[in-house]
Amino acid sequence: MTGQMLLKKIHILVIMLNLLDNFNICSEVMYMKKPVIGVLGATGVVGRHILEILEENNVVFEDIKFFASKKSAGKEIEFKGKKYTVIEAVPDAFEGVNIVLASAGGSTSLALAPEIVKKGAVYIDNSSAFRMDKDIPLVIVGVNDEDIKTHKGIIANPNCSTSQLMLVLKPLHDYAGIKRMIVSTYQSVSGAGLAAINELKENTIAVNEKKTFENKVFKKPIAYNCIPQIDSFCENGYTKEEMKVTNETRKILHLKPDTPISCTAVRVPVFIGHSEAVTVEFEKNITPKKARELLEHAWGVKVIDDTANYDFPTAVMAAGTNPVYVGRIRKDIAFDNAISFWCVADNLRIGAALNTVRIAEKVIEMQVF
Amino acid sequence: MTGQMLLKKIHILVIMLNLLDNFNICSEVMYMKKPVIGVLGATGVVGRHILEILEENNVVFEDIKFFASKKSAGKEIEFKGKKYTVIEAVPDAFEGVNIVLASAGGSTSLALAPEIVKKGAVYIDNSSAFRMDKDIPLVIVGVNDEDIKTHKGIIANPNCSTSQLMLVLKPLHDYAGIKRMIVSTYQSVSGAGLAAINELKENTIAVNEKKTFENKVFKKPIAYNCIPQIDSFCENGYTKEEMKVTNETRKILHLKPDTPISCTAVRVPVFIGHSEAVTVEFEKNITPKKARELLEHAWGVKVIDDTANYDFPTAVMAAGTNPVYVGRIRKDIAFDNAISFWCVADNLRIGAALNTVRIAEKVIEMQVF
Repeated sequence: MTGQMLLKKIHILVIMLNLLDNFNICSEVMYMKKPVIGVLGATGVVGRHILEILEENNVVFEDIKFFASKKSAGKEIEFKGKKYTVIEAVPDAFEGVNIVLASAGGSTSLALAPEIVKKGAVYIDNSSAFRMDKDIPLVIVGVNDEDIKTHKGIIANPNCSTSQLMLVLKPLHDYAGIKRMIVSTYQSVSGAGLAAINELKENTIAVNEKKTFENKVFKKPIAYNCIPQIDSFCENGYTKEEMKVTNETRKILHLKPDTPISCTAVRVPVFIGHSEAVTVEFEKNITPKKARELLEHAWGVKVIDDTANYDFPTAVMAAGTNPVYVGRIRKDIAFDNAISFWCVADNLRIGAALNTVRIAEKVIEMQVF
Repeated sequence: MTGQMLLKKIHILVIMLNLLDNFNICSEVMYMKKPVIGVLGATGVVGRHILEILEENNVVFEDIKFFASKKSAGKEIEFKGKKYTVIEAVPDAFEGVNIVLASAGGSTSLALAPEIVKKGAVYIDNSSAFRMDKDIPLVIVGVNDEDIKTHKGIIANPNCSTSQLMLVLKPLHDYAGIKRMIVSTYQSVSGAGLAAINELKENTIAVNEKKTFENKVFKKPIAYNCIPQIDSFCENGYTKEEMKVTNETRKILHLKPDTPISCTAVRVPVFIGHSEAVTVEFEKNITPKKARELLEHAWGVKVIDDTANYDFPTAVMAAGTNPVYVGRIRKDIAFDNAISFWCVADNLRIGAALNTVRIAEKVIEMQVF
C-alpha cells in the first residue's frame, strides 16, 4: 500500500467515525446486542398473546425458542411464518437464552426462574410468585421503567387488575398524590385461562337450553352470574386477588407502604376485558376537567367519556386492543377531593402479554440482559 | 221481653264486650277493613311478580282488579285459580279501589296517581316519580314502617339498587351510625323490563353463533359485557340510578341530608338478581364479627359468609327468593373504621314487587287506607 493510499484510507475512516458520532442512534443500533428470546408457557392463553404481540411490535431478536410443560412439548407453533417445535421447559433447555417471557404459573416460575437466571437469562414473570419480593422490580412500562435497571435476573409483571389501573393512576398521582383508593372489579373469565373460557361458553349454552351444568373451574355457576371471589382468601377476609391490587399498586407507584387501598374483585360473565369502578381520593385538589386533560395526554391511555352521547368504554370494545380506556370521569360526591372513573382494558394484553413484551423491549433498549 | 230476659241479654253483652277487650287482636281482626286491591301494570315484569307474591303472602282483600295500558287491556290474567280481564288504566276505572299497587313507569304514575288518590285510594308507586317528594313517604318494610302513617295518598317504593341495601344497612346504622358509603353495583337486566331480558337472550345467542346483533334497549352490547350506565346522566356526571342510591338511602334511613354516599351503577349480563360491592364507614367502632352477628339476626336478611368453603351469595342463587343475602363481610382496609360486604337480592322481589306487597300489607295492618 502506498503512503498516499494509506492516508486516503485513514481519511475515509475518520469521516466514517465522525458520521457515527453524529448519528448517535445509528451507532447505538449498530452496537446493540440482539437477544435470544424464550417464550415459556407458549401454548397457554397468555403465551399465545405474547407471540401475537412480539410479531405486532416487531421485537428484534437473534433467535427465538418456545417452551412449555412436558404435556405440550413437541407441539408445533407457527411464528412469523416459520414453524417451531415446542421444547420441554427444563433448566438445561434455556442454555443460551437471554430473555425469557414467562407465563407458566406461580409454582413453575418458583422452581424454574432461579435456575434459568443462573444460566444468564433475564426472566420476565407473569405469575405472582416474585411480585412482592423487595429485590425484584415490578414494572408497568410507561409507569416505572427505571425500576427495570435494578433487576437481578427476575422482573415481575403485575397482576391484570393492577396493571390496567397503573397507566391511569400514574399521571393523576404525579399531579395530585394518591391518598386513598377504593376499587371494584368486573373481571373477565379469560384471566382464569382456557378452561374458564370454555366453562363460561358451555355453562351459558346449558342455561339457554335449560340443561343442567356442573361448574368445575369456578366455585359458583358463572353463566349469567357474578362471583365475588377470585383466588383464595386471606386471613383478613380479602382474596389474594384483592390484596394484589393493594400491594402491587403501592409498590409500582412507590406509594407509602400503608397507603389505604381496598378492593372487591368480582368475576363476571365476560370473555375478555376487565372493567373497574375506581374512586381515588387525592392529597391535592384535582378537578374532573384536569383529570380528563391529564389522561387525554397519558401514554397508553385512551379517554372515552362522552356522557351526552352515552359513550364510555366497555370490555367487548376493549378486547383485542392495547390501550387502557377510561370513562365516567367525575368528582366523587362522597369525598371532599376525589375522582371516580371507569377503567377498561384487554386483560390478556395490558394485563399480561402486552406489558410482558413491553418489559422485554425495554430490557433490550436498555441493554440490561 | 221480660225484665229478667233483658237483664240476661245485657249481662251476655257485657261478657262479650269484656271478651273483645281482653283479646285485642281478635277485636282488631273483627273490625279490620278489607281493601279492594288494584294492580296497575299487571302485565309487566314487576306486575307479574306482584301477583305471585300477593298469592304467596295470602294478602287479604275484599276484591282485586287488574289494570294496564290500553295496549294490554282486555288480556286475561289468572290469579288464585280465577280468571280476570285486564282493565284499561283510566282514572274512573279506579272508583272503589282502596289500595293500588302500581308498577306502570314514571310518566304514567305522574299522570294517574293524583287522580286515583282523589278517588280515595292509597297509591303504592314503584316508579321514581314521587320518591324524593318530601311529603311522600319512601318505605322499606322492616326499616321505616312508621313513615307509612304519614302518607297523604301516595307511598313510594324505593329503587331496586337502594331497596336491597336498606335491610342490611338498618341494623348496622342503628348500632354504629353510617358516616360514608361507597357502592358499586352489578345489576341484572330484568330491572330494565321484558325487552331487556330478551335483548340479553338474543344478543348472547348471536355471539355464540357468531352472528351480528344490533342492540336496542342498551346503549352498548350487553352479551358478555358490562355497561357502566343505568338511566340518564345528571350534570354532576353521575347517572340518575346512582343518585337514587345516594338520595333514597339518606331519606329512608333518616340520615343527615349531606351524608356522603357515592355509587357506580353497572349493568351486567345477568337475568335476575342485583349484586353490590359496598363499603361503609361508621361513626362508632364496629368489628366484622359484630356486623355479622347483627346481620344474622336482622329481619329479611340472610348471611352467607363462609370463605373457608368458598360460600358467598350470588345472583343466580338469589333469583326467585325473598331474602337479601350478605357475604364477604370484612373490615375494610382503606378506612380506620369501615366494613365492606357483598349484598345480593332478587331485584324483582325485594327491589320491586315484594316490598310493594309488604307496604300494602302494612297499610292494611295499620288500617291507613
